[in-house]
Order: sequence, then C-alpha cells, then structure tokens
Amino acid sequence: MRTGTDPAEGVRLEHDLLGDRAVPTSALYGVHTARALANFDITGDTLARYPLLIEALAAVKQAAAAANRRCGRLDPTIAAAIIGACNQVRRGEHHDQFVVDPLQGGAGTSTNMNANEVIANLALERLGLDRGAYDVVHPLEHVNLGQSTNDVYPTAVRLALHRAAGELQESLELVQRAFAAKAEELATTVKLGRTQLQDAVPMTLGQELGAFAGMLAKERTALAGARRQLCELNLGGTAIGTTLNAHPDFRVYALAELRSLTGIPELCSAADLVEATQDTGAYVHLSGVMRQTAVKLSKICNDLRLLSSGPRAGLHEISLPAVQAGSSMMPGKVNPVIPELVNQVAFEVIGNDLTVTLAAEAGQLQLNAFGPVIARSLLDGAAHLSAAVRALAERCVAGITVNREHLANLLPGSLVTVTHLSPVLGYARAAELAVEADSLGGGVLDLAVSKGLLDDVQARQIEEAAGLVGR
Amino acid sequence: MRTGTDPAEGVRLEHDLLGDRAVPTSALYGVHTARALANFDITGDTLARYPLLIEALAAVKQAAAAANRRCGRLDPTIAAAIIGACNQVRRGEHHDQFVVDPLQGGAGTSTNMNANEVIANLALERLGLDRGAYDVVHPLEHVNLGQSTNDVYPTAVRLALHRAAGELQESLELVQRAFAAKAEELATTVKLGRTQLQDAVPMTLGQELGAFAGMLAKERTALAGARRQLCELNLGGTAIGTTLNAHPDFRVYALAELRSLTGIPELCSAADLVEATQDTGAYVHLSGVMRQTAVKLSKICNDLRLLSSGPRAGLHEISLPAVQAGSSMMPGKVNPVIPELVNQVAFEVIGNDLTVTLAAEAGQLQLNAFGPVIARSLLDGAAHLSAAVRALAERCVAGITVNREHLANLLPGSLVTVTHLSPVLGYARAAELAVEADSLGGGVLDLAVSKGLLDDVQARQIEEAAGLVGR
Amino acid sequence: MRTGTDPAEGVRLEHDLLGDRAVPTSALYGVHTARALANFDITGDTLARYPLLIEALAAVKQAAAAANRRCGRLDPTIAAAIIGACNQVRRGEHHDQFVVDPLQGGAGTSTNMNANEVIANLALERLGLDRGAYDVVHPLEHVNLGQSTNDVYPTAVRLALHRAAGELQESLELVQRAFAAKAEELATTVKLGRTQLQDAVPMTLGQELGAFAGMLAKERTALAGARRQLCELNLGGTAIGTTLNAHPDFRVYALAELRSLTGIPELCSAADLVEATQDTGAYVHLSGVMRQTAVKLSKICNDLRLLSSGPRAGLHEISLPAVQAGSSMMPGKVNPVIPELVNQVAFEVIGNDLTVTLAAEAGQLQLNAFGPVIARSLLDGAAHLSAAVRALAERCVAGITVNREHLANLLPGSLVTVTHLSPVLGYARAAELAVEADSLGGGVLDLAVSKGLLDDVQARQIEEAAGLVGR
Amino acid sequence: MRTGTDPAEGVRLEHDLLGDRAVPTSALYGVHTARALANFDITGDTLARYPLLIEALAAVKQAAAAANRRCGRLDPTIAAAIIGACNQVRRGEHHDQFVVDPLQGGAGTSTNMNANEVIANLALERLGLDRGAYDVVHPLEHVNLGQSTNDVYPTAVRLALHRAAGELQESLELVQRAFAAKAEELATTVKLGRTQLQDAVPMTLGQELGAFAGMLAKERTALAGARRQLCELNLGGTAIGTTLNAHPDFRVYALAELRSLTGIPELCSAADLVEATQDTGAYVHLSGVMRQTAVKLSKICNDLRLLSSGPRAGLHEISLPAVQAGSSMMPGKVNPVIPELVNQVAFEVIGNDLTVTLAAEAGQLQLNAFGPVIARSLLDGAAHLSAAVRALAERCVAGITVNREHLANLLPGSLVTVTHLSPVLGYARAAELAVEADSLGGGVLDLAVSKGLLDDVQARQIEEAAGLVGR
Repeated sequence: MRTGTDPAEGVRLEHDLLGDRAVPTSALYGVHTARALANFDITGDTLARYPLLIEALAAVKQAAAAANRRCGRLDPTIAAAIIGACNQVRRGEHHDQFVVDPLQGGAGTSTNMNANEVIANLALERLGLDRGAYDVVHPLEHVNLGQSTNDVYPTAVRLALHRAAGELQESLELVQRAFAAKAEELATTVKLGRTQLQDAVPMTLGQELGAFAGMLAKERTALAGARRQLCELNLGGTAIGTTLNAHPDFRVYALAELRSLTGIPELCSAADLVEATQDTGAYVHLSGVMRQTAVKLSKICNDLRLLSSGPRAGLHEISLPAVQAGSSMMPGKVNPVIPELVNQVAFEVIGNDLTVTLAAEAGQLQLNAFGPVIARSLLDGAAHLSAAVRALAERCVAGITVNREHLANLLPGSLVTVTHLSPVLGYARAAELAVEADSLGGGVLDLAVSKGLLDDVQARQIEEAAGLVGR
Repeated sequence: MRTGTDPAEGVRLEHDLLGDRAVPTSALYGVHTARALANFDITGDTLARYPLLIEALAAVKQAAAAANRRCGRLDPTIAAAIIGACNQVRRGEHHDQFVVDPLQGGAGTSTNMNANEVIANLALERLGLDRGAYDVVHPLEHVNLGQSTNDVYPTAVRLALHRAAGELQESLELVQRAFAAKAEELATTVKLGRTQLQDAVPMTLGQELGAFAGMLAKERTALAGARRQLCELNLGGTAIGTTLNAHPDFRVYALAELRSLTGIPELCSAADLVEATQDTGAYVHLSGVMRQTAVKLSKICNDLRLLSSGPRAGLHEISLPAVQAGSSMMPGKVNPVIPELVNQVAFEVIGNDLTVTLAAEAGQLQLNAFGPVIARSLLDGAAHLSAAVRALAERCVAGITVNREHLANLLPGSLVTVTHLSPVLGYARAAELAVEADSLGGGVLDLAVSKGLLDDVQARQIEEAAGLVGR
Repeated sequence: MRTGTDPAEGVRLEHDLLGDRAVPTSALYGVHTARALANFDITGDTLARYPLLIEALAAVKQAAAAANRRCGRLDPTIAAAIIGACNQVRRGEHHDQFVVDPLQGGAGTSTNMNANEVIANLALERLGLDRGAYDVVHPLEHVNLGQSTNDVYPTAVRLALHRAAGELQESLELVQRAFAAKAEELATTVKLGRTQLQDAVPMTLGQELGAFAGMLAKERTALAGARRQLCELNLGGTAIGTTLNAHPDFRVYALAELRSLTGIPELCSAADLVEATQDTGAYVHLSGVMRQTAVKLSKICNDLRLLSSGPRAGLHEISLPAVQAGSSMMPGKVNPVIPELVNQVAFEVIGNDLTVTLAAEAGQLQLNAFGPVIARSLLDGAAHLSAAVRALAERCVAGITVNREHLANLLPGSLVTVTHLSPVLGYARAAELAVEADSLGGGVLDLAVSKGLLDDVQARQIEEAAGLVGR
Repeated sequence: MRTGTDPAEGVRLEHDLLGDRAVPTSALYGVHTARALANFDITGDTLARYPLLIEALAAVKQAAAAANRRCGRLDPTIAAAIIGACNQVRRGEHHDQFVVDPLQGGAGTSTNMNANEVIANLALERLGLDRGAYDVVHPLEHVNLGQSTNDVYPTAVRLALHRAAGELQESLELVQRAFAAKAEELATTVKLGRTQLQDAVPMTLGQELGAFAGMLAKERTALAGARRQLCELNLGGTAIGTTLNAHPDFRVYALAELRSLTGIPELCSAADLVEATQDTGAYVHLSGVMRQTAVKLSKICNDLRLLSSGPRAGLHEISLPAVQAGSSMMPGKVNPVIPELVNQVAFEVIGNDLTVTLAAEAGQLQLNAFGPVIARSLLDGAAHLSAAVRALAERCVAGITVNREHLANLLPGSLVTVTHLSPVLGYARAAELAVEADSLGGGVLDLAVSKGLLDDVQARQIEEAAGLVGR
C-alpha cells in the first residue's frame, strides 16, 4: 500500500526546483519522493516489493559515502552517519519508506531520490537532528555526492539482478537434481520413445527424464555467464560516463567498498563508461537466458503433462503427485497443476523478455531512460521463475510414479520393432511389413515369423535387443 | 500479504479428496483454498489485487444461485443465503479472503474454489451456522451447483475485463480530448513538418497534435468492439460445453440474472458452447487491441519527447510541464517523465500481449488451462495503461506550451520551400537549387530570386502559400 | 534474381541529385532504381516476388494520371501513354523490371521510383520514343505528378494487402468447410472429452471438430473488418497529409478512378490525411488478426497431432491421411506433416507480427519510414498462411478417418462417468468412489452397483445419458 | 522457381510406402522429394536459397559414408561413389536439384530425403548407372545408412549456422572498425551529451561513436560463444539419441571426418545424445544473441538518424553520406536510408527470434518437429543482418561528416554548464540559476558572474573544464 498523508498527522514543508511541497512529518522521504508519488501511480506497488533493489541501492550509497570520505570530499561525521543509515536500510529496517511506484518515468531518478532522502533523514536522526534539516545532511549534496542517477541506478539494478539470478540458479539446481534422481531410479524402465508424437524406437524413462536434467544444467551455466556480465559497473561515470563531478579516485575506492559490502569479488568498472552508461546489453543478455530457461521449462512441463495424461484415455505412462483436487465438477479428477503453473510463469517470462527488448531498443543517445521497466520485468521474472521451479522440484518431480504395467503392455505391440528389422530386411521391405502389421493389428515380429522372414530365435534376439537401448 | 495461519489462533479441520487439512478458524475460505495457498506461492500477490475479478465471480455465483432456485434445484432458503453472501462480496466486504495467488495451475479451479468456499461460509453465517458446516451449504454442491470452473471462470474473467476495458476507454477519451483541445488552441501555429526526421513541408502544430487525437479515437472504437466480443459467455456449458449436469433452463435464467446484476444488456450465450469453452479468441482480440493502443501511445510519446527535446540543443518546439526535478546531478534539468512513463507501460502491455498469445496457443483440446496468466496479464495491462494514459492527459498534454519564437525562426530558413518551386521549375531544377542553398547556408527563395528564376512578387506569394497549409 | 548490368550490353547515362549513373540500355528502370540496387542488397529478392504490390502501384499511378488529366494538369497524350503503360504493368507484362530489394530504406521511395521509372519508359515506348527521354515523360514530373511516396506507397500497400487478405479469407473458408463437413459426418461418434489433458466428460467427435470450424469462421469475419480498415486511403495527402502540390480535385478524382480500377467500392479518403499519412494502425490491426488466426490454427493443429498420436502408444482416436513417408530410419512411420507445416507457418506469422509491431512503434512525427518491412512481413505472412491453410483443408482435414474401435473401448472404462453420479450421491461421495475405482482398475458404475449405491436400472440409465451429450 | 515436371519430358516411376509416383527423367531427386513438392508449396522458395545448408548436408552425408566404410558396413565402391557425389554437391554443382520448400512438415525429413536422393543418383551416375537404380545405391539403405533425419538434419543445420554466424561476425567487425576509426578521427570534437533527449553535460563525438564500436565488439564475442555451442552435435544418435542402428564406432569416425571436411576442430559429440536430439537450446541461444545484436544496431541507427536530423530544423550534428535521392516530391531532400534499412532488418531479426522461440517451445518428447522454420528464420536473419551491417559500415559510417559550426554554437549557450557550478554553489542554488538563465535566454556562467557568484577567472576556468571531458 502507498504511504499517504494521514490527515490527522502533521506535515513539514520541503522545497525543490518546482516550489514548496508538504511531506508527512513521520516520512523519511522528502519532496522529490512526494512529487513522484503524485506523478507515478500506476501499479499500486511500491519499491518495497523489491527488497533486493533497495538493499543494492543502500550498498551503493554506502560505498559512495565511504569513497567520498576517503577522497576527502565528505566530512567524516556526516559520512559515518550516512554509512550507518545505509546499514539500517540494508538490514531491511525501513523498506516501507521506499514508496515510489517501481514503474516511473525519469530513468530511475525517483528511485534514487527516494533512497537519497530516506538515507539523509536517517543520517540526521543518527546525528540527533530533525527530518528535513538538509543543510547538515543533504540528499543530493551529501548522499548523492559525486554521483548521478545514471550511474547509481544501473549499478544498483545490476547488483539486485545478480542476487535474483543467483537465487534462480539455486532453484534450477533443485529441479535438475530432482530429475537426475528420478532418472537414476528409472534407469532400466523401458518404454517407447516418440517423435512427432508418433511411436518411435524404445528408450528408458531414465533417459527421458535425465535429458531434462541435462537441459537445465546448461541453463545454470548460462545464468552464471549472465551474472558475470552484470558485474561490469558504470559507477563513477556520473551523468553520461565522462566522470564529471566525481573525484578522480572515487571510482576505484567505491568499487573496492562495493566488492566488500556485497561479497562479489568480480565487480569491476566497465572499460568504456560512456558505453556502459547507455548500454543495456547485460540486461538483454540476462533476459535472453531467462527466456531460454523458460522455453526449456515449458517444453519439459508440456512433456510431463503429456506423459501423465489419462488416466484411462491418455498416455498415462507416469503419474504426477496429486496436490490439489482437480475439478469443481468432475469428482476425483486430478490435474497437473504444478506443470501448468510453470508453463504460465514461462509465458510471463517470455513476455517480460519482449518488454525488456523493447525498452532496450528505445534507448537514445547517452542514456536509456527505461531502466525502471527493465528492472521490474527482470526482478519479477526471476523471482516468479525461481518460485515456480522450486514448486516443480518439490511438489511434482520428486513424487513422480510410473505406471509400469501400462508401459509393459505397449512395448511388444509396437510397430517400431520393425526398425530393428531394417538392417536385416532392408528399409523398403521393412516398411511394407509395418504397414501390413498395422492393418492386421498385431505385432511386427510375429508377422515376420509367420511369413518365414525370421525364425523364432532371431525374433527373440531382436526383442531382447529392443530392451537394451542407448548404451 | 498472504493470510496465513496465526499460530495463536485456532483451526478447524476440513476434508477433501486428498485428506484432512487445518484451516484457520477465522477463515472464510476452506480446504481447497488452503491447499492452493501452499501449492501456488509465486507472485506474493493475492486475488485481492483484482477486485474486478472477485466482484465478477460473485455476480456469476449469485446469478447461478438465482437460476438454480428458479429451476427448482436449490432450496429457497439456501439460495437466499448464497445470494446475500454474494452481495456482500460484490460490495467488497471480504476481498481479503480471496487469498490464492492469481498465478496458479488448474485453469482457475482454485480461484473458483476460493469463491465457492468464501460464499458458502458467508451463507452459513447468514443462517446462523458455523463455518465449515458444509452439510447445510456446500461450496460445491450448492454454491457451484450446475457449474464447472470451466464455464464459471471464463465468464467471470470476461466480465472483469469488460469493466477494465471500459475504464481504459474512458481514460483514452480524456487524452484524446486533451490533444484535441490543444490542437484547437494551436490550429494556426505554423511549423515545419518532418519525415524520416528530415525537414519536410510546413504544417500547423494543430494538425500535428490533432492527428494524435484522431489515432486514439480509433482505439476507443476498437476497444468497444473488443468489449462486445467479451459479452459472449459460456456459462451453463459446464465442464466442456456439453451442458452436462446443468438444468436445461439454467443457462437462460442465469444469463438474464447476470444481465441485470451487471447492467450489461449485451451479455449472451455463445452459439457453440464447446467452442466457447476452449477458445480464447476474445482474450487475444482484446490483447491485440490493447497492444495496438500501446503502439500508438508509445509513438505519440516518442514524438512528444522529440518535439520537447532541448532546451538549447534539441528540437525545442514545445515544452512539457515540469512535474519532477529531472536530475540528481544536473541542476535545473527537467525531463519528460510522463511520456517516459507511458512508453514503459506500453512496453509492458506489448510484452503482456505476447504472454497472452503464448498462453492462448497452448490450449489443448476441450480447454485452455492457462486462463489465470491470461487474466492477470490483461487486467494488469488494462489498469496500468489506463492510469498511464490518465497521467498523460492530466500531467502532460494539458500543460503543453509552445516555443513560438524558435518555431518562427526555423521556417523561413528551411530548404523545403523548394517543394513549392517544384511545380514552377520542375523537380530536377528545384533539387539543384536546394543543394546549392544548403551548401551556401541561406534560403532557397532568396537564391531563386538572386538567380532570376523568380521575381520578388512570386517569392512573396510562395512564402504566403507556405503558411497556408492543409486546406 | 537481380537484374544486373550485363557487361556485353550497352548502357545509357541517367542523372539525379547525386550525379550521373549508367543504366543498362534494356532496362525500363532508371537512375534511382539503379542506385537502390546498389544500396539495398539484403534479401536476394526483388519486388517481383510481390506481384500484388506491383499491380497495386500501377493502379495508383494509373488513377493519378487519369485524375491529373481531368484536373487539367497533365497533357492528354502523355496521360494516355502513362495509363497505357500502367495497364501493361497491371497485366504483369514487366514484373521483372521491378528489381529493387523489397527490404529497403527510404519509406518506400525506391519502390515508388522503380514504378515511376518503369512506367515512364513504357509510356515513352508507347509514344515511339527512346528510354530515358524524360523531357517528354518524366518519372517524377509526370508519372509522380501531384504525388509523394508518402501517399502513393501506403495506398499501394493497402490495396495489395486487401487482395492478400481476401485470398486468406477464401482459404480459411475452405478449411472451415472441411471441418464442418467432417463434423457432420462424425456427429454421433461419442468419445471422451479432455480438459488439462485429463479424461473429462463425453462428447462427440462432431462437436470436437465442429468447434474448430466455428473458431475459424470468426477469423474470416475479423479479416473482413481488417480489410475494411485498409480501404481508408491517404492518396492526395502528398508528403505529410497537407495535400501540398496536389490539385484540389485530385483526391476525389483519383479515388473514383481507383475504385473503378480495383473493383473495391469501399475505398475512401481518410478523414484526417495528416493522421493517415503517419499512422500504421490499419497494418497493425491486420497483423493482429492474422496473428490471432495463426494462434487458433496452431492450437487446432496441435490438437490434430494429439488426437492422431500413436498408432499404438498414443491417443490414436483419429488418423490423418498419409501424404509423405515419415521417417528416413523407422520404416512405415507416417508423420502429421501437414499440421506440422501449419504450426510452423503460424510461428512465422506470429514472429512477423512482432516485426510489424516494432516497425509501427518506430514511426516518428509525420511519417513511418518502415513501410517496406511492414509490407513484406504482411504480404509474406498472408501468402504463407493462405497456402498452409489450403494444404490443411485439402491434404489433411478432408481425409481424416476415425479409429472407432479404439474410441469405443475407452468410453465405458472411463472414470468420468462419476460426474453423472454427482447429482445423485453428492460431490464428495462421488469423488471417493472415483478414487476407489481408479485404484481397483474397474468402472465406476459397476463399483457403485456392487456397493448398493445404484441398482442396475439406474446404472443403465446413466450409461445411456452419458452417450446423449451436448443437446 | 520450382522445378516441375516438363510435360514434354519423360518421367521415371519411383515407389515408396504410399505407392508409385512419376519423377522427371532428368531429376536427380526421387519419389520422396516429388511428394514433398506437392505437399509443401508455401514460400515459393526452394532449398537452393540456402547453399550453406545444402553444403552442410552433403558434408554430413560424406562423413557418414566414410565412417560406414571404415566400420565395414558400406562397400568401398559404393562409398567412393557417394563421397564423390557429396563432393560435387559441396562444390555447388547441383543446388538446383534441392527443390523442396524450406518450410516443410516432418522435422526436416524431406530435406534429408532430397539430399539422399540427389546423392544416390549422382553416385549412380558416377558408377555409370541409370537414375533410380536404387538396388545398387539406395537413398536410404546406403546414403542414409546408420542415420536418421533426427541426427542428420540438426547436425547439418548447426554446421550451416556456424558458417552464417561466422559471416555475421566478420560484418560486425567491419562496422565496429568503421565506428572506431571515425571515433578516433573525432576524438577531440566537443559536443553536448544528451540524456532523456534533454541537454546534458559535454562529451566528444569520439566518445559518442566509440561507444557504438564497444557495444558491437561485445556482440562479436557473444556470437563466438553461440558458435561454440553449435559445435555439439548429435550425429550418430539416430532417431531419438539411443544410437539404434548405428555402428558402435560410427559416431567417432563420422565426427573425425566432419572436423576434417569443415575445418572446425571444435566439433564434438554431445554428452547426452537423447537430450541433444530433442533440445533446441543452441538455436535459441544463437537467436538470442542475434536479437541482442539487432537491438543494439537499431539503437545505434536511431541515434545516427537523430544526430543527422535536419538540416535546418533538427539536431544536425553530423551528416550521413547521401546515397539515394530522398523524396519523390521534395526536391533535394536526402534521407538516412541506410540506417533505416538496418532498423528494418533489426525488426525482422527480432521477429524471427520470436518465431524461433515459439518453435523451440513447441518441441515434444524426443524430438522438436519444427527445425525447418527454426533453420529458415536463423539463416535468413543472419544473412540479412550481415548484409545490412556491411552496408552500414561501407555506405554510412565511413562517410559521416561533422557540422562543426553548429556544434560549436550550441555548447556555450547550454544550461548544463551549471553542472560544473554545482560543487561550488550547491545543487539547490545551481538549479535556481539554471531556471533563471533559461527564462532569460542567456548563458548560465554569464548570469553567475553578473550576480557576483563567480569572478571572470573562475568562469573561464569552468568553461575550459567543460571542454576537457572524459579523461
């Protein structure tokens, strides 16, 4: 919920370029945030929905204060107060004061201003001073010193995404392991493979589910690569990457501090700060990786739903755990709700990826003004995908059971045994045999024996071979 | 926030297909909802974020109860209690009890179950009975009587979208009017038109902004068409559109009631209920219209940002109202934050449209299981677009001002006056003149006069004609 | 193939703003086209791939010449020569002279220039004059008189799309009829319906396939609406919609002529020519309709592939006609190649729709410069979709056969019969029965009878009712 | 053009599962191809449009024949004939015999069959035998020996894409170098930077264009990574990755041969062939990289068009080379046609990326049946992007010129000099000064001096500093 002005509460007056504006006395935020509240009222959400972003912003502000102190630009007392305030924010004590809508114009300026104001007022509090006493600790002149939204905001977004993508990696590992364990359990369960939804040659369920584990393992690697790209920061570039108004040593000091605060040793300064300030490549790349993960997960969940279709009039090879009564009308029906959930989150992530693409393409000259919608799309997508994948591992894959009788019944009747005859009889002859068996309704091997094309011993050998798949 | 089980609070036991489950004593919802809370924990949101959907669901349940009573299938006392409960929900008294995640598997079953349970318990309360006394009023046997999620849920989603799209229509009218008013105000302000970002022939600012009004007017019409399509309902089709378990008169009675409850006389029963139960065409169509509206708005906002670029090194033809200090680093900078906001919402809506497309394509056989992500994408998109458009009208377009001096300076120097010479001198000769004037840096007419191609009177006539654009 | 300069052949010199340029003596095109050939060499295709567009352009040029003659601006002899030349082009006599790459910069200028030059040289030929004698018939001063690429090109694209969409409508009618005929044929074939890929209540194959016919019928209607929008033309608006350089009567005369030439009485002049010149709404709308058609076709083809899966280990309810040996390795395998073809064309159309969306959003100020990629995406998409749909009707749907024995076997065993018991026993009791029958492996009705919940007569009545679906 | 049956020409009869079929006597292809010609008639194109794919297929067939000979499965004479035939195809001698539509159902089977048949008949020719004498060299039993479309086709597609992406890398290097050279040339040309299209702090044109070079350099690296992923092949996995019917040594021998034939030492066998046969991750990844490249190129071209807008009423900082007369109506107008071309190809590539995404998501169980549309989208996209990028380098970037006078005029008047005052006066005071200067119309520094906030010396120092950007 938005934090509004309680009519019973007092207000203080703050001032900016556009004039005076009342702010609730209790608010840690100030005039810029108050204006943003009025201007951007779109989603009903506040920044508090994105604690990773708030904490990353506070880390950046803390690193900047420490660096400015070390450069001799910031009074040690004020620096200490700011650093203390940032620590409070990073501990999650004041997330409710981050009240602006995450969907906002201005390239993240309102988010940066919200942070500057909250941190300034917390610092004032630590110094025993009133809120709004900005002549002592000013949101812009002290908290934002030597910085611009255009370097602070992308830096914070990257740090937040680094964590979000890390959580997604962990969730993917869970589901990868669940598939691998199930694959091991079912390593010898023979079944028919299918291509183009038509009966194909035999394989094991272990091979089938193991392939899913392998697909997702690759996405974990891809996410690791995307996270590395997020580590190239433009902090210190200020407005357009020319470092104007930042102390010459600021960048090096601030990054060292940031590495220590975040525990990410790979953080580094971009080689070309002008490029880094306007470029959104690292976001598009992460978005592309998440999109690809979503595509794979959706395909896998489609397969799980197919394989568990039935119970009487479907493939019915496996059963998914029942976690929810399926139908409000058909008693006893149980639906594949967890894979359906994952499918939907995958569709959301693919849609978000388009949003990110559009926003990235729309950047102009020295800045992309659309960081807020990029950040929101990626943070939401990563969190939703991570939660969905975790549900898939824990509430679905781990509990898969096999309908062995059904599998066993299908195999011998299958026409695909004819593939084993192909090297013996030739492709054309084998094909004719398959067509004939299909119209008669029986097995191919029996037909071949009855026609004298094989003797019984050969037929049994082939049958055995059909069970020994995929060395 | 999710409504969880307060450890200090008592619980009651409820039972379903999967066994017993504790539900908080105070909860109006029951066992199906409780399981859904555990299974679907993705977005952090609850259905309470979508009051339009909750209210539509309650209207459907109310219409169903009234219809079942009229068919003689529902005891009048129980029917009255259910109808009363639905009225409470429709008045917004219990939205906090709609606790399931809007992103859920199961084709909306958990949403339907949440409504069934809340309404049953409210009905029991009205009858002076305890929560969970389902032998008297049962969520499925009474509240869901003659219904299936597969007809109830799509019906409710369509009703909710009908309202959401109506609100968007109204917002579009606001911004259309704002552009039209501004166009009238600037009907005689002559300026250079531009094609491919290159100087073209003259026009008025009124023509330029009036075109925006016209574009958006067409989208209002398109939205009206999309809303009409939403009025075709599959209520009464039950599970797959075959009307199994619904009383033969149910459909007619329920729709009559629904028309009365919603005040939408266009509501009607789909001609083919089997088609209507599985088809998502009306959603894709609405999504396409919203996408098209977003494309137009994004183009318009790009233009507003271009025309107001500067102030010194841009086109600077118009100024947008300053609503926010623009930069945390460059004092005095004012940015086009409202158009930037609209751009971002447009990108979101276009991304959501892809999500809807993917979900629609993924439907299988008699049902599309992905209604929840479709509903969420469209409801969010419509609400965000509506709010952004309103901001555009009120906080931007209405306050546009013109930099007349700058406009006036550009016009006579422009090379495009040569277009007026084309009918006199021929295209090729006129082109040569333009190239020469460009290299000399002066005006085309002066050059033509100095070369004896025109006399002064002719030159003045052409200049006048250049101001008389767009008869 | 590109028409290049044959080294053995002679050349003539032509001249434009940028200087002299050699053109092959035999070429009907001129200097602007020659430059475009060098500048735009992307796809390997030429405009000749799009005869609808060439013929539409020639119609516009013909209408313009007639209108200019009527306005007294064009010498009747020259007008007659131009009109004769346009007729030649419209008859397809010189499509090979339309050599520029359809993917080109310049908002269609090179396409317009290619047409202007070919028509001028054909007109010169008709007058017994040499190619390049532009002092008599000039590509710009006569053929393009009172026109701009910015009104001519969009007008031609709309006319071409009107025809392309008309062909798609006809193809959709074919497949709609094929489904409707098959539905009638199978109106009494009872089968299990499926929701979320799980067994649901019974229906007929006629209902299942009839729903597909209904879905596609709606798309034909939607296409008709999209075609109507294409009829609003900006011809006569010239460069930016202000009608500069066009005779006051030009627009009315030209449109009258165009209606007569094309046989489309709905053609009309846009209400706001400035809006119409820059707006791409009619393209985005058509693209959205084609996208929606593609989504429905893809869903339908997914269903056809599911229903025909097997033959032994799939749903195997229907068989699609074998049109191609399926596998290079598995003899006798037959794959659903036609539905797979339609799926792929659908994916292409949905991708093209995004291309159109991006191009539309990128329009700036008085013009969208990206008409060429819009035109190409839509013309390709409509043609491919039309061909794919025709193949679906003729090579797949018409030949669908039913595996009646398999269908009949599934029905009685199904657990969904329990749905019929729900009104008698209550939902909860019925659900328990279904779970028990599932674990025992037998039918629900038999179990109910054995438990004394039903007598034999009741069981038979329910069985009969289960076959009487979907009144 | 499709190669059809010339009525005057003789035919030979060939036979498959579906019966007899006439094939033109001169055709190198056979019955499977003939059926595919009838079944798939969508795009008007043939495989001959994609020489990279044909040559890759021939390389795979050649490697397979060599491996089968080495395994002792293929008679050395026949193997030699097949290898000779493959060499002919790889040299491009018979591309016209690859006549099937690239858009086809059947997961690439028809493409594989077309290759098998052409190679078999060429081999027969080398042996002095008639076309169709398949008892000696059979398309399936010899040319396709130990293979399946499902391993051959993806392997060939990957090899073709590896080359296509390599060509794109080279084109990107061209444009990267063009930007870098121009950046060096303009390293000291100072100009105003812009954020959110509003005047920001100064920079050099060298910095501006150099950032573009840096962005594209990263995409070359990303393409290199995507090419590496394409090197993991499933050849030898046969139908579903279980290696059924392939000799145990086939895989190792075939890959060794393929490395030698293609000169790509990184080619290797996928770790999990079942996964590799169904997974499309490498395609989606490449598509994502091309999409990202397209996004960056579109952004860069938008900027080039902005910076060159005018000449009188735009930013007009740079001029792009005139390569085409710009307007059919406005003489002398020159448009940014090359950047517009690149924008459109970028939109196409982004649309194709969606097509690839949809096709990838639609894979089912052991195979993705939609390889043909994936291959076509990526091969077209890579070729178009490569050609467009080359045009950008050669016809646009290399010829960029600077309008120095215009740049110089803008700088001193700019209000952003106030940013330099911010550390001296404080943010709030500096902001007030900027607002005042804006309303007065003069420079900020002069105003500060006139107000006694700075002396002349300080003002000059700041002015100099403003020119010393971006150390």
